[in-house]
Parts: sequence; structure tokens; C-alpha cells
Amino acid sequence: MNGLDHTHDPALTSWVDSANGHRDFPIQNLPLGVFSAEGAGRRIGVAIGDFILDLTQAADLLDEEWREELALPVLNAWLARGNGDGRLLRHRLSELLSDPRYRDDVEPLLIGQSEATMHLPCLVGDYTDFYVGIHHATNVGKQFRPDQPLLPNYKYVPIGYHGRASSVRASGEPVIRPSGQRKPPEAEVPVFGPSRRLDYELELGVWIGRGNRLGEPVTVGEAGEHVAGYCLLNDWSARDLQAWEYQPLGPFLAKNFLTSISPWVVTAEALKPFRVPAMTRPEGDPQPLDYLRDSDPAPGLGLTVEALLSTAQMREAGQGAHRLSHGSAAAAMYWTVNQIVAHHTANGCNLQPGDLIGTGTLSTDSDTGLGSLLEISRGGKQPIELPTGETRSFLEDGDELILTARAEAEGAVPIGFGECRGLVVG
Amino acid sequence: MNGLDHTHDPALTSWVDSANGHRDFPIQNLPLGVFSAEGAGRRIGVAIGDFILDLTQAADLLDEEWREELALPVLNAWLARGNGDGRLLRHRLSELLSDPRYRDDVEPLLIGQSEATMHLPCLVGDYTDFYVGIHHATNVGKQFRPDQPLLPNYKYVPIGYHGRASSVRASGEPVIRPSGQRKPPEAEVPVFGPSRRLDYELELGVWIGRGNRLGEPVTVGEAGEHVAGYCLLNDWSARDLQAWEYQPLGPFLAKNFLTSISPWVVTAEALKPFRVPAMTRPEGDPQPLDYLRDSDPAPGLGLTVEALLSTAQMREAGQGAHRLSHGSAAAAMYWTVNQIVAHHTANGCNLQPGDLIGTGTLSTDSDTGLGSLLEISRGGKQPIELPTGETRSFLEDGDELILTARAEAEGAVPIGFGECRGLVVG
Repeated sequence: MNGLDHTHDPALTSWVDSANGHRDFPIQNLPLGVFSAEGAGRRIGVAIGDFILDLTQAADLLDEEWREELALPVLNAWLARGNGDGRLLRHRLSELLSDPRYRDDVEPLLIGQSEATMHLPCLVGDYTDFYVGIHHATNVGKQFRPDQPLLPNYKYVPIGYHGRASSVRASGEPVIRPSGQRKPPEAEVPVFGPSRRLDYELELGVWIGRGNRLGEPVTVGEAGEHVAGYCLLNDWSARDLQAWEYQPLGPFLAKNFLTSISPWVVTAEALKPFRVPAMTRPEGDPQPLDYLRDSDPAPGLGLTVEALLSTAQMREAGQGAHRLSHGSAAAAMYWTVNQIVAHHTANGCNLQPGDLIGTGTLSTDSDTGLGSLLEISRGGKQPIELPTGETRSFLEDGDELILTARAEAEGAVPIGFGECRGLVVG
Repeated sequence: MNGLDHTHDPALTSWVDSANGHRDFPIQNLPLGVFSAEGAGRRIGVAIGDFILDLTQAADLLDEEWREELALPVLNAWLARGNGDGRLLRHRLSELLSDPRYRDDVEPLLIGQSEATMHLPCLVGDYTDFYVGIHHATNVGKQFRPDQPLLPNYKYVPIGYHGRASSVRASGEPVIRPSGQRKPPEAEVPVFGPSRRLDYELELGVWIGRGNRLGEPVTVGEAGEHVAGYCLLNDWSARDLQAWEYQPLGPFLAKNFLTSISPWVVTAEALKPFRVPAMTRPEGDPQPLDYLRDSDPAPGLGLTVEALLSTAQMREAGQGAHRLSHGSAAAAMYWTVNQIVAHHTANGCNLQPGDLIGTGTLSTDSDTGLGSLLEISRGGKQPIELPTGETRSFLEDGDELILTARAEAEGAVPIGFGECRGLVVG
């Protein structure tokens, strides 16, 4: 596999015992994030097993050139340095956390994740949401436009739109049920009130590292050097508000009340062993236009993504969360992340370090891989039954939705993303 | 007129001679902005006649409590203090610039506008664009959807969508013609290349002052206290890209390559003498839903807005710019700014100090008041003839587009916004 080094070595272990065999954060992962603990302010850290290494405190052990960026309470300036420095930091952290000679110096700088609060890793300048899940686009299109689920531009244009940056929040932020206008099909006029069709969308988020200047597009071949890492992203959606408001300028209040993300930036470097080929375009589909031709043989993300639901009744009964869906990201994505970045900047639009891009809902073509309740319940017409006997078409107050992602590949130590959680409150 | 005080007094004059009778910046205006000059960094200033008073240098003459916010290179923190402090600063500046006793202290702190570069007044966290110009929506709708120009939601929902914050720029930024996909009607497949239908859109921008917390809507009655001021806004648009990409999630690359604004924040306070009633809803139109009922008797903006075109040939011939359109903002807006703010936050979406909201294109129902070339040239079918004999359907390389706005009312000294300019380069 291209570009792997000793930091990816499956034989590598850490002197932090909980890291070895850790579901999410073995030493092969080393995701960056922003945390606070013990009454102190926000600091940059790296996840290792059940702990966080405080990089502000570890500054003396790191390259002096990085000190300024790593001392900030957000990762934007660090990510702006680009993936070359990202790799160097990864090498150094891998060394510090594997070589027992550093244990005495580093161990005092570890903080238990259970004692820390995670925050947004970056100040999000702009948040863009794409729509590259072709099965999702088809499933949703069927409900909004039964005669033409997939519009003629879909197979040429990586469709995207701008979302709200101010309401992006780290995992754990309560989901306040939004109010808005909805127009029941039988009603003559719309009514205003709390959404009755509150939904989640299972997506991946892409963190932009190095930016580009206004007027200077990033080519599909250069795109990888602008992608710093990934997270889980829940694009909470009020379907009733969306159906009434979305024409002609797209979703707005149906989406901008909250977007939740998992707080750790899983770097593109850590995901290298899990790259897979892009989705094979079905026979008869057009080839991408030249500016979208991706010559990378393995631009896809070999990740399994999952959505779980925990209702208040399930929690009271001591039951674990119920899996709503489970599927491969690469099997869902009609366009690659490289293509997304190239398209986004093809008109000269400037991306900035710390910008967040959502992939769009990652539904596979299987009934067990649908990334939203809108799809799972067929637009609310086929409620699902939960192990408690409860039914759900959309989310109820007290429901908690949990997203996870896991990367697995032969000859590699699996890594995870942590969780993206949100509890619906009335 | 409600809420006027001595700072609005038409008899008030300044010891800065050029302010008296100034087209844009008499002492009754006092807009805030961010400038740089003489090799120094960005500073906050107020426009007075042909000059800028440097508020960083004037700090000793202002309330000590404001010093920190006014020493920053952007206005966000100042605007966050709210309109109460905005009024107090206005009172003090009015005093300093009218009372000759202050002349000796203040005059050395004036910098000629011609020697200064203006910048974005705020770090724009989020930029939202609305669509409240009902005549524009109808005119554009006719071209995209001849059978149903105005969709059923338009008279209930103040339609808006999120735009790109990173590409908002101050007046004077060159307009680099964007490339993108377009699909000519007769073609089977789209092609990629420079836009052939580059257009402008004449809008007003709204600067948010005090923000609201996530989950806590701003009512229509409270909205005024969250609006700090106004600017001109040019929502540059590539019509050929837009037509092909906009379904189903709205405009994206057709718009996000650049948004230009006039750099001075004309405060809501300065515009008080020019408030007018909202547009009278045509007979038979629905009343706004309760959360959008605006009891303000004069929520409208008594502003005349104007678009001018200067081609390279016109400049070579020494000819002044040609007026493309000219009309009343209030006559264009189906929804008021109070309604825009209430709607935007009705679902709990949080606005932040320094957020920018565009009204949407302000076209009147007159042929002389159309706010875009798409409308003026009837979708490109009726090119206009310029005084040079040149014709235009859309913008050509070398064209400069200039927006202006002017407030006039009986018994008030007229004020202006300055200019929003952009020169198209290939």
C-alpha cells in the first residue's frame, strides 16, 4: 500500500496499555482534538487509548517551530501548515507513545478521556454539505419527486450547498427540536410549530487543512494535500420543514438548527491503510468531466459507518442501543473526496484551514445500510419496530442517536472515529 | 419620527468642511468601517465627509469601556455590544465632529479616504442570502419555471439559503470570471469552461450586531435590536452554472466565487429618519403567520438603490458610468428585515455578531428598477444598448459594475452608503 511507514506498522504497540487493542484509538490512529479538563481552558490533544496527551504541556518534546500553532485553543492554524507537518507530528507522537524511554516524561501529561470535555476541533469558517450518496439521493428523490428521483445533473455535478457554520457542535450537544413552517398535504395553508419529522443523517465530515486562494482552483490531483482529516457528521434534518421550504434555493431552516460532529480529527495519514478504489460507475453512466477525473487508484474510504438509536425506554430497561444501519462509506459515495474538493474550488472559491465539508448521507443499496429514518421508514409510511416494542418513523423526544465509524483492512490495526451523539429534547 | 435625537438634526454641521453637503457621509451618517493607511495595520474608523477618523487614535476621547473592542482590526466585538452602545458612540462622535472645541484634538486624527484602503468591516462568520425581492423572484422564476414563476411557499416563507462567507470581499475586489459546468439547451452533455452569463445582483446587506444563543429564537419585535447596520451587496452570479447546478439543493458554485460589499456599516440608527412602511401586500395575499407579524409601523428601508455599468470602451472615451437600474428598496421587499431575522432564528439557529445577511435582489415592478442583467436583458434574449453603441446581455471582461444607495426623506439630511465596485477580469 502506497505511502505507509512505521507509524502504520500493525506490530507497533504503545506503553499506554489501554491503546493496545483499543476499539478507536490504538497508536496507529493518533487523532487530534480540542479538549478541556480540570477547570483549565481549551487545549489541543491527541487521543491514545482511553487517554488524551495534552500537546500544550508536551510542547518541550515537540518541534519548536510548531509551538505557536499547537498552543492555540483550535486546530485551524496547525492544519494550515499542511499535511507534511502533519506527518512529522504523527511520527514524533508515535515515537513518544511507543518508546518506553519517553514514558516517564509523557505519562504525567496524559488525561483520562472520561475526565475531559471535547470541543469543536476547529473554528469552522464555512461548512459545506455535499450529496454524494447516490442511493440516498435516489431514495430521497423518490419521495420528493417520484417521477424523477435522480435529476439529470447528478452524474455530472457533485451536488453540494452551503450549510450553517455557527450551529456546528461537538458530539453531546442536545438536539433542541426545531419549530418552523410545515404544510400538511391536506392543508390549504402552512402551520408553525415544532417539527414532527425530526431525522438524522449519517455522514462523514472532511476537515480542510491547507486552503487555497480566491480565484485559484485546487485540481483533483492536488486535493489530497488539502484534506487534513475526517470526522463523523450528523446533519440533523426536519423533514416537514424541508419539504415546504426547500424550493427553489435549497434546505435552510430544516438543517441549520444543529450539525453534530465527532470531536476527533482522524487524519488522512491514519486512514492510508484503509484506502479503497472508488465506486465503480454503473454501465452506461457518463465518465466524469476532465476536471473531475481522479487518477488516484484508491481514493475511496474503506470505512464502515453505523447509526444506533437509544430511546428513553431502552435506557430505563437497561438495553443497549439498537442498530439502525450499518454500511460501507465507499459503497455509498458516487463522488470521491478528491472530486468534492476539486469541484468546490473549480470556480475559484477559496477553502480555508478548518473548513468543514459533509459528504452527504451515506446510504448503501442495501436495506440495512440506509443513513436516515426518512429512508428507513419509507418517508414515515413504514414505522420500524424496536426491541422494546416501541415504533419509530422519526425521532421522538428522549431519543439518542449515536454514529460510529470503523476502518478495517487486512494487515492493518483497525481504527475508529469515536462517537457522534445527540439526545433529542423537546 | 420615532427615536430621533440631536444626532439626526438636519441643522447639525461638522467642522470637517467636506462633510457638510457630502453626498454620502455628512455628520448625520457616521458609518463605521475598517481601513488601513500609511503602512499601518487595519483599524476601526468612522467616515466623515472625505475623511476617516481613526478610532484607535481617538481612544482617549471615547469611553474607556469601549477601548478593547475599538482597538481590534474588525468590528465584530464592537457590534456584539449591541445598539445601545452603538447609540452612545454615535452621540460622542457627533459631538466630537461638530463642536469646534474638539477640532484641535481630533483634526490630526483624520485620514483622507483617498489615502486609505477599506477592508471587510467584520470577520463574517456566516453569510445568508434571502430572496425577499418579489419582483425579482417572479422575473427569475419566469425564466427557470415559466409555468410557475412564484412557488406556493413564497408568500408564507421568507426564502433564504446559506452563502459562502470566505469569499465575501470589500468593494474593489476584482471579479475573476468563474469556470464551471454549463449545459447549453441543445447539448446532450454539459461542458466545463468560463461562464458566459456572468451577472450581478443588486442587494442590501444586513450586519448582525448582538447575536442569539443556539435554540433561542429572536422574535420579530426584538429583531431590530440585533441589526447593527447595512451595506450594499453584489451577489455576483454565473447564470449558466446556476441553471445547471441549482436543483435540488440550490445555488452553489454559481454564487460562491465572490460576494462584494460596500465597506461602511451604515448604522440602523443613522437610517431612522428614513424608515417607511413595509410593502402593502397585494389584495388576496395571505397575512404573515403569527411569528412573522411585524407591528413596527415603519420597518421598511427608505432607500434608493442604483446599479451603474462602466465598460472599458466607456472609460477610454472618458464617459461616465451608465445607469442600469434605479429603484426603491422598500418597493422591492416583500419581507422586512425584522421578518428575515425572526424567520432565520425561528428554529433556534444562532446568529453571531458580524454575520452578514443579504436581502436578495432588489428589483421593483418597473423596467427601470431591475436589479440584474438576467432581468434587464430578459434572460439574454434582449441585449441592451449602451451609449457607446456596445451591447450587453451579461457582463464582459473589462466591465465595472458599481452599486450605490441613498436615503432621502423630508426634513432629513440625505445620507449615502458609498460604493460597491467590481471590475470583471478574464
